[in-house]
Amino acid sequence: MSNQSAPEPPKHPRRRRRHTRTPVGASPGTLQPAPDALPPQIAAIGFGPQGVVERTPIDLEEIAAMRASCNVTWIDVTGFGDVATLKHLGEMFGLHRLALEDVVSVQQRAKVEDYGSHEFVVLRMVDPTAVQETEQLCLFVGPGFVLTFQERPGDCFEPVRQRLRDPSGQMQKRGSDYLAYALLDAVVDAYFPVLERLDARLEAIEDLILGTGGEAAVRELYAQRRCMLELRRAIWPLREATGTLVRGETKHFSAGVLPYLRDVHDHVVQLLDLLENCREMSSSLIDLHMSTNNNRLNEVIKLLTIISTIFIPLTFLVGIYGMNFDVMPELHLWWGYPACLGVGVLVAVSMLLWFRRRRWI
Amino acid sequence: MSNQSAPEPPKHPRRRRRHTRTPVGASPGTLQPAPDALPPQIAAIGFGPQGVVERTPIDLEEIAAMRASCNVTWIDVTGFGDVATLKHLGEMFGLHRLALEDVVSVQQRAKVEDYGSHEFVVLRMVDPTAVQETEQLCLFVGPGFVLTFQERPGDCFEPVRQRLRDPSGQMQKRGSDYLAYALLDAVVDAYFPVLERLDARLEAIEDLILGTGGEAAVRELYAQRRCMLELRRAIWPLREATGTLVRGETKHFSAGVLPYLRDVHDHVVQLLDLLENCREMSSSLIDLHMSTNNNRLNEVIKLLTIISTIFIPLTFLVGIYGMNFDVMPELHLWWGYPACLGVGVLVAVSMLLWFRRRRWI
Amino acid sequence: MSNQSAPEPPKHPRRRRRHTRTPVGASPGTLQPAPDALPPQIAAIGFGPQGVVERTPIDLEEIAAMRASCNVTWIDVTGFGDVATLKHLGEMFGLHRLALEDVVSVQQRAKVEDYGSHEFVVLRMVDPTAVQETEQLCLFVGPGFVLTFQERPGDCFEPVRQRLRDPSGQMQKRGSDYLAYALLDAVVDAYFPVLERLDARLEAIEDLILGTGGEAAVRELYAQRRCMLELRRAIWPLREATGTLVRGETKHFSAGVLPYLRDVHDHVVQLLDLLENCREMSSSLIDLHMSTNNNRLNEVIKLLTIISTIFIPLTFLVGIYGMNFDVMPELHLWWGYPACLGVGVLVAVSMLLWFRRRRWI
Amino acid sequence: MSNQSAPEPPKHPRRRRRHTRTPVGASPGTLQPAPDALPPQIAAIGFGPQGVVERTPIDLEEIAAMRASCNVTWIDVTGFGDVATLKHLGEMFGLHRLALEDVVSVQQRAKVEDYGSHEFVVLRMVDPTAVQETEQLCLFVGPGFVLTFQERPGDCFEPVRQRLRDPSGQMQKRGSDYLAYALLDAVVDAYFPVLERLDARLEAIEDLILGTGGEAAVRELYAQRRCMLELRRAIWPLREATGTLVRGETKHFSAGVLPYLRDVHDHVVQLLDLLENCREMSSSLIDLHMSTNNNRLNEVIKLLTIISTIFIPLTFLVGIYGMNFDVMPELHLWWGYPACLGVGVLVAVSMLLWFRRRRWI
Amino acid sequence: MSNQSAPEPPKHPRRRRRHTRTPVGASPGTLQPAPDALPPQIAAIGFGPQGVVERTPIDLEEIAAMRASCNVTWIDVTGFGDVATLKHLGEMFGLHRLALEDVVSVQQRAKVEDYGSHEFVVLRMVDPTAVQETEQLCLFVGPGFVLTFQERPGDCFEPVRQRLRDPSGQMQKRGSDYLAYALLDAVVDAYFPVLERLDARLEAIEDLILGTGGEAAVRELYAQRRCMLELRRAIWPLREATGTLVRGETKHFSAGVLPYLRDVHDHVVQLLDLLENCREMSSSLIDLHMSTNNNRLNEVIKLLTIISTIFIPLTFLVGIYGMNFDVMPELHLWWGYPACLGVGVLVAVSMLLWFRRRRWI
Repeated sequence: MSNQSAPEPPKHPRRRRRHTRTPVGASPGTLQPAPDALPPQIAAIGFGPQGVVERTPIDLEEIAAMRASCNVTWIDVTGFGDVATLKHLGEMFGLHRLALEDVVSVQQRAKVEDYGSHEFVVLRMVDPTAVQETEQLCLFVGPGFVLTFQERPGDCFEPVRQRLRDPSGQMQKRGSDYLAYALLDAVVDAYFPVLERLDARLEAIEDLILGTGGEAAVRELYAQRRCMLELRRAIWPLREATGTLVRGETKHFSAGVLPYLRDVHDHVVQLLDLLENCREMSSSLIDLHMSTNNNRLNEVIKLLTIISTIFIPLTFLVGIYGMNFDVMPELHLWWGYPACLGVGVLVAVSMLLWFRRRRWI
Repeated sequence: MSNQSAPEPPKHPRRRRRHTRTPVGASPGTLQPAPDALPPQIAAIGFGPQGVVERTPIDLEEIAAMRASCNVTWIDVTGFGDVATLKHLGEMFGLHRLALEDVVSVQQRAKVEDYGSHEFVVLRMVDPTAVQETEQLCLFVGPGFVLTFQERPGDCFEPVRQRLRDPSGQMQKRGSDYLAYALLDAVVDAYFPVLERLDARLEAIEDLILGTGGEAAVRELYAQRRCMLELRRAIWPLREATGTLVRGETKHFSAGVLPYLRDVHDHVVQLLDLLENCREMSSSLIDLHMSTNNNRLNEVIKLLTIISTIFIPLTFLVGIYGMNFDVMPELHLWWGYPACLGVGVLVAVSMLLWFRRRRWI
Repeated sequence: MSNQSAPEPPKHPRRRRRHTRTPVGASPGTLQPAPDALPPQIAAIGFGPQGVVERTPIDLEEIAAMRASCNVTWIDVTGFGDVATLKHLGEMFGLHRLALEDVVSVQQRAKVEDYGSHEFVVLRMVDPTAVQETEQLCLFVGPGFVLTFQERPGDCFEPVRQRLRDPSGQMQKRGSDYLAYALLDAVVDAYFPVLERLDARLEAIEDLILGTGGEAAVRELYAQRRCMLELRRAIWPLREATGTLVRGETKHFSAGVLPYLRDVHDHVVQLLDLLENCREMSSSLIDLHMSTNNNRLNEVIKLLTIISTIFIPLTFLVGIYGMNFDVMPELHLWWGYPACLGVGVLVAVSMLLWFRRRRWI
Repeated sequence: MSNQSAPEPPKHPRRRRRHTRTPVGASPGTLQPAPDALPPQIAAIGFGPQGVVERTPIDLEEIAAMRASCNVTWIDVTGFGDVATLKHLGEMFGLHRLALEDVVSVQQRAKVEDYGSHEFVVLRMVDPTAVQETEQLCLFVGPGFVLTFQERPGDCFEPVRQRLRDPSGQMQKRGSDYLAYALLDAVVDAYFPVLERLDARLEAIEDLILGTGGEAAVRELYAQRRCMLELRRAIWPLREATGTLVRGETKHFSAGVLPYLRDVHDHVVQLLDLLENCREMSSSLIDLHMSTNNNRLNEVIKLLTIISTIFIPLTFLVGIYGMNFDVMPELHLWWGYPACLGVGVLVAVSMLLWFRRRRWI
Repeated sequence: MSNQSAPEPPKHPRRRRRHTRTPVGASPGTLQPAPDALPPQIAAIGFGPQGVVERTPIDLEEIAAMRASCNVTWIDVTGFGDVATLKHLGEMFGLHRLALEDVVSVQQRAKVEDYGSHEFVVLRMVDPTAVQETEQLCLFVGPGFVLTFQERPGDCFEPVRQRLRDPSGQMQKRGSDYLAYALLDAVVDAYFPVLERLDARLEAIEDLILGTGGEAAVRELYAQRRCMLELRRAIWPLREATGTLVRGETKHFSAGVLPYLRDVHDHVVQLLDLLENCREMSSSLIDLHMSTNNNRLNEVIKLLTIISTIFIPLTFLVGIYGMNFDVMPELHLWWGYPACLGVGVLVAVSMLLWFRRRRWI
């Protein structure tokens, strides 16, 4: 009953978050990455009047040189398995130790924080190549540099890198704030395909419910609702964060970038709209399933009742003339048998008529 | 059971939005219309002290001439299949490239944005001739011009055009802000018939539920709820947008137009009120359906129970005297048969009385 | 089952609102009353140092005279079937054309608007003599005049008129703002009996549910919920409106009247409280009905199961000895029949004991 | 089934509020007490440097004398059956006529109002000796006096009176605002035992549901929910009222009393927290009841199905060999009867095994 | 059916709060600890330039000496069984009597209050060694001292004590506000493991529901929901409290500590996010359970219907030929018996085919 060909059921992975919070009561700024954190890999792209320089991987010493020679440097760190590297980077760019602690504890809520010498943004990113999981992205913006920290390889920044490499593009002429905007924009836009897929799944579930129903639809629906919860947890705080950016309360984003940030904020609000829509649709679907199911139950029970109500009295009737009393005068009449059958037919037909009048059949 | 004559069931079209978002990570301002976007058709109406000039279609060169000779020019573009035309228009009127990007990505949230030299309004419009679908309307208002971009032919602006052509009307004497107000007003008012039809559908569903019930009502109700979700998605952000206009924070709408904008805003709030009403009614209807259904189930099961409870013991009774034991003294009494039937009648009648006392029948 | 003597079931009229919106895209200020609008009837009461003057009906020319001779004039117009009269009145009192348009489109949301030379208040009024329907009341307050527009004859202003006629009362000494307050107060207070009746109905439904239950209770409950929706739609925006008045943002209400307006506002808030209470009670009642119903279903099915479980095995038992095999030794034992009956009784009794232990009976 | 020994079921009184609103459209300040209002009884306590003076009952003339001789006078009026007395008191203390109207209409929402010469507080009070009902308490605070109006005898002020009489206590040294605080505090704290009792009832209902279930639990739960609604209606607006006091916007409460008022406000918020908790628990209980009930229904139906599924085919089987056809060869085989019984046993056992495999038994 | 091996079912303790509110109407500042309050045990840690001094237990006289010799003194009081000690401490540190009253009444809402000479924070703390219960923690911060009051022994401050003892740590160099932050941080972080355990329980319940279902899952779920309610009651007001601290409105926390407090506040918000997630998941689980259950019920009833619908007509059929009429010609045909059986098989097979076509089997 559950082997309907629902289009491409997503392998819903059991949610097993790696909880890498710093231990309770630990000193603030304690860096304690998850045991399975990957060793950091650092990629750097610098640009300025002289063009674009790209180094992957780069080691820590070269970074300083690149910063000196380029207007804007983008350091992209993937994996935080090595505390020393992180600390070194922190000192090099003057990062606040609380911000650095947030980088390695990968269950942060999306937020924007101003640490004076740099702006700190945390948000969750979907990986377009493996959509089921989101990872944490931390982004530092300061004068002349953007630092990003990702949990795992695989991101949605490839188009941004392309635009950076394009000598005719606008990207090379603008500052670190514009680069940061471009990265935020890429992260936010990568949620749209996820939501569109979610929407398509809900339509498939709807077909399932209106079709054969069954428990498969419910389980699938339940899985999708959990998925929505995850997404909402990722996107909801993002709205506050981008809202902060839009209000222009942050000094590391120049006024020229504000319209672009407003655009990002609009997209986040639109994502929430879409998600809210999916939520409402999913609860409508539950109602639909419930009442479809109830209707089916009613049909089944109606059938049972019709059959029982017709045949149980008849069985009683024929039971009477199966009795072995010595004195049963009807038994000896020649028209006894046809009369008995006739009464039975009469009962059955009148029952059927009554059912029809009540619109049961 | 589902062929009740519900008044004119709307052909609920499967929601297949054309997702024409710019690709993830693309440079801002990238114009990438949907592949099935129609080629742009431009209509222009200009007016001023010398009267009304109307050109349909108009080509890009003539627009400049018209702007020069008229106080106010309304350029109405339908379809964005040709990027070059859009870009040309953008340059001609000094439109911001982010706004232009929003024009072609047709899933924008309703909003009002101030780009200095012009005001940009996005909202969704119902087409009175084909109500099932809403399309995106973008509206630019600047000194002496109004620019509208529609996805498809067919709009609700015909009465506005009539009023423009009427030499005695007020329209010709007022500025571009008043024209923009008139267009917004037409779009908002076009939602009222849609909501009234929705309301009528809900009343029809109510009749269906209170009448024969059945699954048809539920499916129909579900379709209407989806419809409401769509409408809410269109109207809800509109409230914020018109609210912004009403607060007078926009410099392209003069103070004299503010009372009119307040009127539009009131209508949007009223639309939301009506929609909220429909929503509450629809969830009341679900409750009503559920409990009507349950009541019917109860009735069916009660009948089954009554019939079974009366006849199953009787069948057992007559079964006893159908047994073939050698020694069954009752069988040989002359009053055995009538006594047996009498006991049966007694059992049945007392059962019936008991059911009546419990108010089952 | 539905003929319980529920106290005075209200004849719930099918909600058929007259939708008299101005056509989509019409010029603002277009006066287009509903086709079934009544011809206007004008009543006037003026008062001042020289006492009270009352004219019913009054024609338009006399109004100017009365305004000149009285401190405050109250013009009460019932029905808007004649556009010319309305326009004439509008010019006479300098009413804004948007306000005048709102007067004739009878589905306005309650609101307060300041048009400079006069204050404009729209709200919905219950008619104490025919409570099922609310009608729209528009009220203009300006220096020395109050203008009210009602849809239909029948209002709740009789006590106010009495107080106006009373030479010893306070009314005659105060201005148009106090008169306007008195009218608003009368409209708001007229909702209290409606809510009390609603409350009484809910208690009757509760008795019905706890008593015999049945579908009648559900339908009645559903009708009351719709009634509540209507009331909420009328009262909810009223709160905003009176809130605006209380904040003293309107120049046509003097400071001395503010405490009275605060009193009106308190009453509106109290109405919403009562309504909210009714709403919560009604959803509690639905839960109660559902679970009462389920309990009854359980009882019915339990009975069916008890009877079936006892008699179906017994019927099988006696069926065995109704078989006609040649060799059935038990049939020829003299104690076969009593033994068979004994086994039957044993089975039945042990079943009954088992049911009792499980607390089914 | 409903005579379980639930601990001390509260006699839930039918809610019959005395609606003593002033008639619709009446002049503001009209004093119209309920017909069954008790005649007023006035108790007075005055204190000052010379100690405490207590007079119960006191007549109106003596009050003026007491006010002259004492720093602070507390006049406590119980019952408003006599309008003349109220009016006299009103004039004596300069009370606003709108406030006086609120005193006698006993369904006011809790609020705080500043009438210049005095502060007016309305709230609802539980009577610790008869908790089922709340009554309205009105409290006027002015320089040197506190006036309280209660509907009925019986209040929660006894401890305050004790503290007033205690010459060593702080009470006698402080002003009327501190006395008013003490009274408010007593009223608010008296709600805590009510909520604790409510909480205990909910736990008893939980035991009932998890135990034998039954309709008694649902009815009880429903009664408690109504109780909660009443409490919420009493406490919710109180929060706004005490909030107003805490913000220090009232000139009749000195700064020294503010921390105490903040304490009262905290308690009100805590009451709402507890109430909200009870509400959530009660809706959890409904879910629990529903699913417990469903589980029981499932069990019952499973039993029915098992019994029917086993015995109905067997009954058919034995029915076959009860037929009277002339030619039925099996009947004449010596092993026919045991074979038939054997097949029956086989069918039954395999059914049972199948049920076990499906985990039904 | 309920003995599934659900992983480590938590012993859900019946919630029996000790209600130790001061009696209704008591004088403010009355200290009345619960009868079962433990005798106070005082531990003190002082630190300053000369290092750390630790005294456990300490008596009241020594505290003054320690305060004189140390920069910051942390007095940790466990149990409030002795009023005299509390009063003495209150005088020594100049604590407000209302704050002191809050300390002993252990059902306070989390809050932050500024009493001029000291800051007062109340919150609830989980004990990591016995997680089921939360206890109230009161914290006073003033110049050079931190005072904490716990209900019971056992807290989550051990890591903080370790850091205090560490001469190389930052702790010793900072003021009382930093110490207070460290304590708050420890309390807030101790909630994370509790929520993670809750989350794990919900996943176990999900497995149970998708597996064998049964009532055990529902009861467990209900217990967890109550647990969540408790947690929410503890954490929700905490958000307001830490929000107050973050806004920097309190003069006892220096600007340098603000980023740390912001970190604490972020964690509280994150806790609420997680809790909200759990709540949504739990209500999804209820839906899932309901529909899984319904599906099972449907399966059972379908089986009953199939069996009954096939065999009840057959039983009637064979009942006919069990009748004893003298004249039943079919009985004497040699092919009567096989024909009768044939008809039976035909009926059964066609029924089965019909069921298959309806997809019931």
